[in-house]
Amino acid sequence: MPEAPPPLLLGPGPSNVPARVLAAMAQPLRGHLDPLFLARLDRVQAQLRTLFGTDHPLTLPLSATGSAGMEACLVNLLEPGDPVVIGVAGVFGERMCDVAARAGARVTRVEAEWGAALDPDAMAEALGRVRPKVVAFVHAETSTGVLQPVEEIARAAKEVEALVVLDCVTSLGGVPVQLDDWGVAAAYSATQKCLSCPPGLAPISFGPRALARIRERRRPVQSWYLDASLLAGYYGSERVYHHTAPISAIYALAEGLRLVEEEGMPARARRHQEAARALAEAVAPLGFEPLVPEAIRLPPLTTLRLPERVLRTGEADLRRRLLSEHGIEVGGGLGKLAGRVWRVGLMGENARTTCVDRLVEALGHLLA
Amino acid sequence: MPEAPPPLLLGPGPSNVPARVLAAMAQPLRGHLDPLFLARLDRVQAQLRTLFGTDHPLTLPLSATGSAGMEACLVNLLEPGDPVVIGVAGVFGERMCDVAARAGARVTRVEAEWGAALDPDAMAEALGRVRPKVVAFVHAETSTGVLQPVEEIARAAKEVEALVVLDCVTSLGGVPVQLDDWGVAAAYSATQKCLSCPPGLAPISFGPRALARIRERRRPVQSWYLDASLLAGYYGSERVYHHTAPISAIYALAEGLRLVEEEGMPARARRHQEAARALAEAVAPLGFEPLVPEAIRLPPLTTLRLPERVLRTGEADLRRRLLSEHGIEVGGGLGKLAGRVWRVGLMGENARTTCVDRLVEALGHLLA
Repeated sequence: MPEAPPPLLLGPGPSNVPARVLAAMAQPLRGHLDPLFLARLDRVQAQLRTLFGTDHPLTLPLSATGSAGMEACLVNLLEPGDPVVIGVAGVFGERMCDVAARAGARVTRVEAEWGAALDPDAMAEALGRVRPKVVAFVHAETSTGVLQPVEEIARAAKEVEALVVLDCVTSLGGVPVQLDDWGVAAAYSATQKCLSCPPGLAPISFGPRALARIRERRRPVQSWYLDASLLAGYYGSERVYHHTAPISAIYALAEGLRLVEEEGMPARARRHQEAARALAEAVAPLGFEPLVPEAIRLPPLTTLRLPERVLRTGEADLRRRLLSEHGIEVGGGLGKLAGRVWRVGLMGENARTTCVDRLVEALGHLLA
Repeated sequence: MPEAPPPLLLGPGPSNVPARVLAAMAQPLRGHLDPLFLARLDRVQAQLRTLFGTDHPLTLPLSATGSAGMEACLVNLLEPGDPVVIGVAGVFGERMCDVAARAGARVTRVEAEWGAALDPDAMAEALGRVRPKVVAFVHAETSTGVLQPVEEIARAAKEVEALVVLDCVTSLGGVPVQLDDWGVAAAYSATQKCLSCPPGLAPISFGPRALARIRERRRPVQSWYLDASLLAGYYGSERVYHHTAPISAIYALAEGLRLVEEEGMPARARRHQEAARALAEAVAPLGFEPLVPEAIRLPPLTTLRLPERVLRTGEADLRRRLLSEHGIEVGGGLGKLAGRVWRVGLMGENARTTCVDRLVEALGHLLA
């Protein structure tokens, strides 16, 4: 089937997948219990630990997308009636509340403006008042483009012995993540953002305190598929069958992680910062302006307020033309920000000024 | 990394993936909201309906493996306290009980010998006694190699207005499936068996009666990720974001389904039957004997009782040598049958007498 050439993916994910990763994914399959496949899985798990900044043994690519990673962390650590404090400053904080409530937890929300960071004092106040089992928040809020400082909230959590659950969907591989230094008990991410792999896997990590909490549960985890104790059977040293691991997606992730390793995380984080800075500068003359103050701006994903003329003529139409006429995808606003901002991802492979140049040139044409 | 050549995968899945499917998977990605991707997804959903033998609008490739398909069907249709009758004659019937119990359902088990089919009279008796909301059983039990006749149980379910949930993991694409004729309300499968695609997706189908039941729920579905009403937003006509669809895996499935369409399901089912018959005949002289009577034997997956000499020397060792010396993977027994049988899959691409020949030749060498 002849089709338009593949677009430059500058939305909130997926980002473009390097040829090496696509080629690795297309390798013939070995079985999910084959020792040669398991050796490769070992290496993937070790590389994910490095990237998450953790020694957590139970670190693995969950066989589903990032949202299932969120659900896995919350349903394993929460039981019906458990108090949980959740920071909400965008769609993914909201989603955490929904997921936790479905698990029967008593949710206390701490809200912040969309486009702002959570206030550590407000979080600390709620933690002291509620004394929750778990505190959950988003490191890199994909709906607003805010990079949340983690340490202060994690310190407050430690004081009340709450386990920290962190959403690293749009940070892992683009921004330094240090679960152990920060004291994060469980975290999740996704492959289609700063790792530049296809969507379909959720890297997740459960630390010793999370596993201890799971062992003390009064009732089984509501999800069989996401039950960390069962996952530990396959993703631990026993390698017993739980479900059939998505072999090809893991081949892709293995190659994506090799690319991260070759570049080194410090250089990769710098590249993301430089590309985001170049973007903000280059779109300013066209009337696009970052929503988020620079100090908490998330390099892999920039939310841009739209110029008046674009709001007047309809931002969706401009996005459609950007894709159909120039082969560039950017994301619209999500939730409260729908119609008001664009989300421009410069993630993984695409965190390059050449991508900024292509976008700005195309916008220049369309807005001329 | 130099590696051994890819094995012939004659276990219980994954089966070997055709080169056309691998190439389709390795295409550059489009976004999950890109109209050209959505057009392809439309076609995948239509082809899955054909293959499932259904008009169910909510038929889609779930973004997780077959076990999550099982969980999706059960957690959407069951609420805490709901009675459910489950047929148990192998590992996957057992798994259904576990999943349903975690959803808070009151489970009534109807058991049969592993290697036998469920007794429709026993199922009908339980249905009349319990009058459950849901009756769930396995069409093609991957742990025993039994193909369960569906119609009689489905008729009994209709009499008590129970919704039928059917596990089609090892039947879809290898054996005719007719959800609408049979009166099945919800069903699930997997991509790595008779569809010869990589593992990672679970084709699922919810019919109108299932959707009506979901609309009448008193409380939300416990899983956000698997909530059919939310999935309907993306996999229905609105195409609104729920989670990021696994684009590359869907490219692979699209090509796998095209291969099924080109061959035609009747010819494909015949090919599976012929290969299974050839296997049973060819291994008999070596002392391997089918566990399951021919009338209910599942063509895509044959369980073989092992000859005394193999039991004596250890079946695991022979399997290891088959893989390392001859590049052929077969499956060991699962659950109660561990150590007592092998599971030989002739699924999808591999349902060919040439695969039987390779296996028999290798076994001949190893047992000489």
